[in-house]
Amino acid sequence: MADQRTEISALGEFGLIDYLTKNIEILNPSTVLGVGDDAAVVDHAGMQTVLSTDMLVEGIHFDLAYSPLKYLGYKAVSVNLSDIYAMNATPTQILLSIACSNRFSVEALHDFYEGVYLACEQYQVDLVGGDTAASQKGLIISVTAAGQVAPDKFVTRTGAQVNDLICVSGELGNAYLGLLLLEREKKIWIETPSVQPDFEQSKWAIEKLLKPTARQDVIEWLATQKIIPTAMIDISDGLSSEILHIAKQSKKGIRLYEDKLPFHAQADELAGKFNLNPTTVAMNGGEDYELLFTIPQKDFQKIAESKLVSVIGFVTDQEKGNKLITTAGQEVPITAQGWQNFG
Amino acid sequence: MADQRTEISALGEFGLIDYLTKNIEILNPSTVLGVGDDAAVVDHAGMQTVLSTDMLVEGIHFDLAYSPLKYLGYKAVSVNLSDIYAMNATPTQILLSIACSNRFSVEALHDFYEGVYLACEQYQVDLVGGDTAASQKGLIISVTAAGQVAPDKFVTRTGAQVNDLICVSGELGNAYLGLLLLEREKKIWIETPSVQPDFEQSKWAIEKLLKPTARQDVIEWLATQKIIPTAMIDISDGLSSEILHIAKQSKKGIRLYEDKLPFHAQADELAGKFNLNPTTVAMNGGEDYELLFTIPQKDFQKIAESKLVSVIGFVTDQEKGNKLITTAGQEVPITAQGWQNFG
Repeated sequence: MADQRTEISALGEFGLIDYLTKNIEILNPSTVLGVGDDAAVVDHAGMQTVLSTDMLVEGIHFDLAYSPLKYLGYKAVSVNLSDIYAMNATPTQILLSIACSNRFSVEALHDFYEGVYLACEQYQVDLVGGDTAASQKGLIISVTAAGQVAPDKFVTRTGAQVNDLICVSGELGNAYLGLLLLEREKKIWIETPSVQPDFEQSKWAIEKLLKPTARQDVIEWLATQKIIPTAMIDISDGLSSEILHIAKQSKKGIRLYEDKLPFHAQADELAGKFNLNPTTVAMNGGEDYELLFTIPQKDFQKIAESKLVSVIGFVTDQEKGNKLITTAGQEVPITAQGWQNFG
Repeated sequence: MADQRTEISALGEFGLIDYLTKNIEILNPSTVLGVGDDAAVVDHAGMQTVLSTDMLVEGIHFDLAYSPLKYLGYKAVSVNLSDIYAMNATPTQILLSIACSNRFSVEALHDFYEGVYLACEQYQVDLVGGDTAASQKGLIISVTAAGQVAPDKFVTRTGAQVNDLICVSGELGNAYLGLLLLEREKKIWIETPSVQPDFEQSKWAIEKLLKPTARQDVIEWLATQKIIPTAMIDISDGLSSEILHIAKQSKKGIRLYEDKLPFHAQADELAGKFNLNPTTVAMNGGEDYELLFTIPQKDFQKIAESKLVSVIGFVTDQEKGNKLITTAGQEVPITAQGWQNFG
């Protein structure tokens, strides 16, 4: 769509909404009414509804210099559904609002929605409503997701018990390494536009940043194994910040083992280029959207056999505090870093 | 709170969310879990869930030069709940996301949330989640509301039948007259800051713009009268635009009578100051948030006795088109104006 440029004003608001939503197919029987009225209608008879919302702002949460709009659409949905999965629920509907300046063409929004629909298909959710508006500057995206869960089977951050095992899906820190790489290349590119970056080697880091996947597979695997986490959260702000949420809200203490943290095989090498080590990146870098959860010890064997999940520590009494045991055997206090956008 | 200025950075994101949400009281038994986890949980056992979302952007939808933040918080909620009522449903929960630049202090956000909580109390809805973010410019507000309705009792825009009566609540055009007034006074104030405007006479127009009320009372009254509208919409973009939505989506034609349109007693005088007449204002001005709906003729007597609602026309065959019958007896085609923010 890159060669065409249709001004949004040529369609008008209603034309734009029609254009962007005309091909929606309803996937969930629970979606009684989708886009096109004042509100969507959902039937979750006998189930509980889980609701979550996120806002993404250009220049704060993403940089269109290196975020293709299709990836961004995919990511906006993934990030939100990650919250629904983190409740141990199944997402079923989303609402999507965007505000953008007239710098954006209809084709640009088409690309963005391609990513949104790709995510809807992958996660089997219905886009059932939203709003489009003008903005004074940049692109602002707001996604709200609804999901369902059997009565009282949702998992919060408050239920971790002493001696529970702390588990995490996937690898940690990849998205932040991708961000460091892209920020560096952007700087080089601004100074010397003729230099073409070669990202092939670091695709694993860059793709994790630009099109992260919500861990639907982990939730489904936990269900087949009949493992119900005692507490769960998704990692949007870095491991430190997220495990402290569980610690605080469960009123427990935490022990994490540095040598158990799951890294990509090349994480050490790539982090080294930025004078960082993978542990610092994992603890403080954000946007991994992996699931962090606690399980009773009785489920250890099942987890140990899985390739989806690593055991990285255990839960202890609150008065014992929150500590990382380093590879050298030192106990380092875990402190919140993470989100620093204001200021 | 106007004398204090706490930088948002002094609280951090989590501190800010805690600060803004610490006093929430859960009002609905259907709210199983509110703010403080990855997502909210709602139990609508046996009911259907209605979902709606809106985005409000500073400089596009509101002007902080004359919109007090408390009013704005109240309005952001009202506007969204208006969509839920327009489905003939009862709102139960909202999610609220805001993005703002560091021009805003914690006290400013406190004022905004005061309005939000006032609306929550008035409409008996629970704030169950949200997101806060930084913005590059201005304040952006996104509200999502969930409501409930008995299975298949929701009212869409598609069900209007030939010979149905077209009804509207309240008065039309007041909000737009308020906007014209405030825009004029803002201009005068910029040129001559010493001139203090006196709005006492036009309070009815200005308050309608700055703190509109969603018509919960009308929905409740319709329920007591056992009137179920065949189609319904709320007026956010002007009567023309909204009645055309019903016409198009119901595949019907429309007749409206100019002499039946409900105006404020001083609308003619105030519109005259801007060389407009109240009909033009009502047809094309937005933000009244009144309910526009169609009912079977059998319910005419009940409506005729109500002071909440006016009958302003009737539904006809689609091929007869959409027309306004003027006081002089002329038939004028109804055309969409309304929303012109892009461009």
